[in-house]
Amino acid sequence: MKSDIDICRDTLLSPIEDIAKQAGVQPQELTPQGSLKAKIKPAILNRLADQAEGKLVVVTAITPTPLGEGKTVTTIGLAQGLAKIDRSVMACIRQPSMGPVFGVKGGAAGGGYSQVAPMDKLNLHLTGDIHAVTAAHNLAAAAIDARLYHESRLGYDLFSEKTGLPALRIDINNITWKRVMDHNDRALRMITIGQNEPDKTINGLERHDGFDITAASELMAILALSDDLHDMRKRIGRIVVAYDLDGNPVTAEDLQVAGAMTVTLCDAIEPTLMQTLEGVPTLIHAGPFANIAHGNSSIIADKIALKLSDFTITEGGFGSDMGFEKACNIKAQQAKRGPDCAVVVATLRGLKANSGLYDLRPGQALPDGIFAEDHNALVAGFENLKWHISNAARYGVPVVVAINRFPQDTDEELAQLQAMIKAESFETFVDVAISEAFGKGGDGAIKLAECVVTACQHKANFTPLYQLNQPLEEKIMAVAEVGYGASHVELSEVAQQQLVKFKELGFDELAICMAKTPLSISTDPSIKGAPKGFTVPVRELKLCAGAGFIYALCGNVMTMPGLPEKPAYMNLDIDENGNIIGLS
Amino acid sequence: MKSDIDICRDTLLSPIEDIAKQAGVQPQELTPQGSLKAKIKPAILNRLADQAEGKLVVVTAITPTPLGEGKTVTTIGLAQGLAKIDRSVMACIRQPSMGPVFGVKGGAAGGGYSQVAPMDKLNLHLTGDIHAVTAAHNLAAAAIDARLYHESRLGYDLFSEKTGLPALRIDINNITWKRVMDHNDRALRMITIGQNEPDKTINGLERHDGFDITAASELMAILALSDDLHDMRKRIGRIVVAYDLDGNPVTAEDLQVAGAMTVTLCDAIEPTLMQTLEGVPTLIHAGPFANIAHGNSSIIADKIALKLSDFTITEGGFGSDMGFEKACNIKAQQAKRGPDCAVVVATLRGLKANSGLYDLRPGQALPDGIFAEDHNALVAGFENLKWHISNAARYGVPVVVAINRFPQDTDEELAQLQAMIKAESFETFVDVAISEAFGKGGDGAIKLAECVVTACQHKANFTPLYQLNQPLEEKIMAVAEVGYGASHVELSEVAQQQLVKFKELGFDELAICMAKTPLSISTDPSIKGAPKGFTVPVRELKLCAGAGFIYALCGNVMTMPGLPEKPAYMNLDIDENGNIIGLS
Repeated sequence: MKSDIDICRDTLLSPIEDIAKQAGVQPQELTPQGSLKAKIKPAILNRLADQAEGKLVVVTAITPTPLGEGKTVTTIGLAQGLAKIDRSVMACIRQPSMGPVFGVKGGAAGGGYSQVAPMDKLNLHLTGDIHAVTAAHNLAAAAIDARLYHESRLGYDLFSEKTGLPALRIDINNITWKRVMDHNDRALRMITIGQNEPDKTINGLERHDGFDITAASELMAILALSDDLHDMRKRIGRIVVAYDLDGNPVTAEDLQVAGAMTVTLCDAIEPTLMQTLEGVPTLIHAGPFANIAHGNSSIIADKIALKLSDFTITEGGFGSDMGFEKACNIKAQQAKRGPDCAVVVATLRGLKANSGLYDLRPGQALPDGIFAEDHNALVAGFENLKWHISNAARYGVPVVVAINRFPQDTDEELAQLQAMIKAESFETFVDVAISEAFGKGGDGAIKLAECVVTACQHKANFTPLYQLNQPLEEKIMAVAEVGYGASHVELSEVAQQQLVKFKELGFDELAICMAKTPLSISTDPSIKGAPKGFTVPVRELKLCAGAGFIYALCGNVMTMPGLPEKPAYMNLDIDENGNIIGLS
Repeated sequence: MKSDIDICRDTLLSPIEDIAKQAGVQPQELTPQGSLKAKIKPAILNRLADQAEGKLVVVTAITPTPLGEGKTVTTIGLAQGLAKIDRSVMACIRQPSMGPVFGVKGGAAGGGYSQVAPMDKLNLHLTGDIHAVTAAHNLAAAAIDARLYHESRLGYDLFSEKTGLPALRIDINNITWKRVMDHNDRALRMITIGQNEPDKTINGLERHDGFDITAASELMAILALSDDLHDMRKRIGRIVVAYDLDGNPVTAEDLQVAGAMTVTLCDAIEPTLMQTLEGVPTLIHAGPFANIAHGNSSIIADKIALKLSDFTITEGGFGSDMGFEKACNIKAQQAKRGPDCAVVVATLRGLKANSGLYDLRPGQALPDGIFAEDHNALVAGFENLKWHISNAARYGVPVVVAINRFPQDTDEELAQLQAMIKAESFETFVDVAISEAFGKGGDGAIKLAECVVTACQHKANFTPLYQLNQPLEEKIMAVAEVGYGASHVELSEVAQQQLVKFKELGFDELAICMAKTPLSISTDPSIKGAPKGFTVPVRELKLCAGAGFIYALCGNVMTMPGLPEKPAYMNLDIDENGNIIGLS
C-alpha cells in the first residue's frame, strides 16, 4: 500500500469553497486560506440559531498501545461511511501538535484512505492556531517577569508613581504560569531563568521555571472551551498566573495583558474547514492532549457542525478513561450538550497488548508476535474492551464498538471478538462492526456507519460523573473511583494544601481535569487490562480558572514530552521537486 | 487625525486577487490567505526569467530616535507616490516581530495614510512565517539536547548499536545554537536548562543556554537570503549548531534534522502579497532586525518585485550604518545585485536628537522641546544627516533625502534643512524632497517620487565595502573603519580565538554581520551626531555558516530585548464588536 502522504497527494481534492457550500456555509462566513483550507467565522451560529442540531458521536478507544489504535482513522472513516450511505455528516478533530509529528507517533490526520487532507498542511502549522496559543501564552509569561523586574528595580512606590499602575507585588516563589513550546523538549521541563552576569541584574530576577508543551496550556483549553470571542476574553482575564506576597491571586487581567492575549488569538478562535479524502467537510479546532489536558476539539466547532449536519463525528484522545471522560465531564458540562453515541475503537493487537502477556515499551516498536493468532491473549485482553464499553455506557449513551482491522488480522479472531462482545450485557445499547476504513476508506466503514445510525435512534440519557457544585474532593473521587474503578485516591500533602487554598479562593465549583498516563486505566502504565483495587495518587493540583477546571496531576505524568533516540524528524525532507517526504 | 488602525479599517481595500493581477501575478502563482493577503510561489521567477529588471531603491535613514523616523511610512509613501505619477511599482518590507508590537515601538506597517493593510494582520502572525522560523529553530535545539541526553544515557557505543546512528559526541560546553522566541523576554537571555529533581536524570543534561528573539535567528537570515527552497535546504544543512569533543563542527545535517527544518519552512519561503492603503502591491518576507541581524527583507521578494515592476522600493532597518550597510555588503553580494538608489529618511526631530543637546532615553517619550524651532540644534544635528548621505554615496549610488514632515515642523526649518543639503557636495548625485506621506499618502510623496525617478536615471556604480575573499579581520575593519569611520577595531580575546578557529575551519570567505546599537554610528548609544575617532569593541563572533556570514557582537548589544515598565500590550484589546483596538 502507498504511504499516507502519497495517497493524499494522489487524491483529487475539491476546492474548499465547494466543500463549504456543500456543508451549508455561506461565502461571507468563510475565509479561505489557500484552496484547501478555510477559516469559518463563528458568527455563522447566529444565522443558524433556529436550526435543529444533529447527533453528536464521540469516538473513543480501548487503552491504546503507544502507537494508537486508529481512532482518527476510524473517526474519519466513519464520517466517510455515513456519507456513503447518504447521511449529512461532518467530522471535528483536533489540530495535531508538532511534538508527536517530529517525535514518535507521527501526524494525526488519520491514515490510509481515511485521512483529513492535505495531511501535510494539517500536521504542520495548518492555519497557525497552535502558534497563536504559544505566542499568547508566552506573552503573559514575559509580562510576569517584566513586571517582577521593574517593580523590584524601582521599588513598589516608585514603580507606581512612574507608571500610574498599581504594584502587583508578585511572589517570586509563587508564579504558576509556565512558558510553552510546541515541541517535545525535555531539557526545558525544569529550568532557571533570569540569570545574570556577575554583579549585573539587567536580565531580571532569577527563579525556577519550566516549559510545558503548548497542548497543555490553559489557553489551549480556553480556546477549545470558549463559546465565542467575548467569552474567551473573559476567561483569559480570569487566568491566575501567580500569587502576590499576601497570597492573593494575580490574574492576566491584573497584568493588563488579557486584551493583548485575546487579540493574539482573534484568528485562532475560528475553526478551520478541511475535507477528508472523500470530501467530507471536517472542522479542525484546538489541540489539547488527552493525558495532560482535556483532550477534545473545540465546543465552537462542534456547535457549528451540529447545526450544519445530521451527524457530527468527533473524538476524545486515548482511551475512554481519558479524552472521553473529559468530553463528558468537562466539555459536555460547559457546552451543556452531551454526546448521543460513543464509538469505542478496538484492535486485535491492542487487546493482546492489554493481555499482560507482552512486554511493551513506550517509544519502542511493537513485538511482531502481537499480530499472530493468540486466543489466550485475546480473551485476556478483552477485559480491557469490556471495561471501556461499560465505561462509555455509564454515561448513558449507546455504544458501538469499531474493530479497526489490520491486514494481519484473521477472520477467525475477528469473529471471536464480535461474539465475545455480543455475549455480554451492558447498561445501554451496544453493537459492534468491523471497520476497514484504513484500506478502503468510507466503503470499509459502511457497516460501522449503519450501526452508528441505529445506535443514535436509541435515546441517550447522558449523565456526567459529577455535578460542578459538588466539593472538589468529591469530584476527584468521582473520576478516580467511579470513573476508573480505583479503590481510593491519595492526595499528596501539597495537593491537600492546594485543595484548601482553592476552596478558600472560591474555586470550588470548577471541573476536574485528570492528568495521567494513557497507557493504563490506572496511573501506572505497566498495569494493562482492566485493573481493580488500585490507588490514584494525586501529586499536585493546578488551577485553571479561565478554562474552568482544576488539573489533578496523577503519578509521574509529564507536561512536556521528550524526543526518543531516533525521532520521526529524521525521516522528513523535501525531494527534488520540493515535495515533502517522510511524513506519516 | 484618526488612529492608524481606524484609518486602515475605514479604507476600502481591493481583493488580493485584483492586486495580484494588476502586479502581473498569474492565478496559479498565487495562494490567497483570506481576501487581503496571498502567498506567491517563487516559481513565478521561472516564468519571468527573461523579463528585464526594474530599479531597486533602498530606503534608509539618519541615526534614529528609539521611536524611528518614519522609514516604513516613507517606503510605503514613496511607493504610493510613484503609483500616483503612473510608474509601475512594488514595495518589499519585512514582517514585523511581535516583540516591538507588544513592547515599545508598536507595529511596523508604516502609519497614517501610508500603511500596508490590513495593519493588524501584518503586525500579528501574518501568514505565520515568523512562527515557522521559531518552530524550525527550536526543533534543532530540542534535537541537540535529545541527542546529548541519549548518547550520554546509553554511552556512545550502545547508542550507535541501538540506533544505527553515529555518536556525535557533542561537547556540552560548546553548543552554539540557542533557542528563540518572538517576544521581548529578558528573563530568557541567560538560563540553565536540563535541570532535574534530586537523583534523577530524566530531563536531560544540565547546561547553560539562552533565548534570542526570533528576528536574530540564523534561520531568519537564511529565509531572507536563500535563492529558492533547494538553496535553503542546503544552507540549513550547513548550520553549525555545536562542536564535538574534538572541536569539529556539528551541523544540522549531522543531526539529521535539516530536512525537517526545511519542511517546517516550506510555506515560509513564499513571500506574502499585500497592498498599501492606495493599492500598491507589497511583498512581505522575512523579518531580521537590523541591529542584531542583517535587517533586510528577502532576496526572493526583491527578485519577484524587480521582475514585475519598474521600481522596487525596499528598506534596511535603522540608519545607513545598520540595515543599509548590510543591504550592500551582505544581501547585495549574495543576490549579486546592488541598489540603484538610496533614500535617506530624515526628520527635524531626529536631527535635533542627534545634536547632543537633548537627553534621550530608550523606552522613554521624546522631550517636548525637540519639536520646537531650534536653529542651533538643527545645524548640530545636520552632521548626522551629512554622514548618512555620504555613507550611502560611498556605495556608488545616487541618494535622495526624504524629509519626513511632522505636523509641528515649520516651513522655515524645512527650507533651512533643504538649503543645507544643497550647499554640500557628495560623491554621487544627491537630491532632497519633503515627504508628507503620513498625513497625505501618495499625494504627499509625489515630489519625493519624482526625485527618485530622476535619481534612478543616474547610473549607479555599486561597490560594496569589501570582497568576500578578503580575510575576516579585513572585512571587519572595512565595516568599522571605512563604514562607520572608527579609528580602530578592538577584538576581545574570545573574539580573537574565534577568528583563528573560523579560519582553521575554512569559514574565511563569509561576510560580516555587525551587531551593534542603532542609536549611534559608534557602538555607544549615547554618542550622537557624526562621531569620529572612536573604537569598535568586538566582544564575540558568532558563526552563521548557513546564512553565509559571521556576526560580530559589538559593545553591549543584546540579542533578546526586554519589555519596558508600561508596555504597548497594555493598550491592546477587542471592542464590543470584536474589533482589535489599541494597535499602532
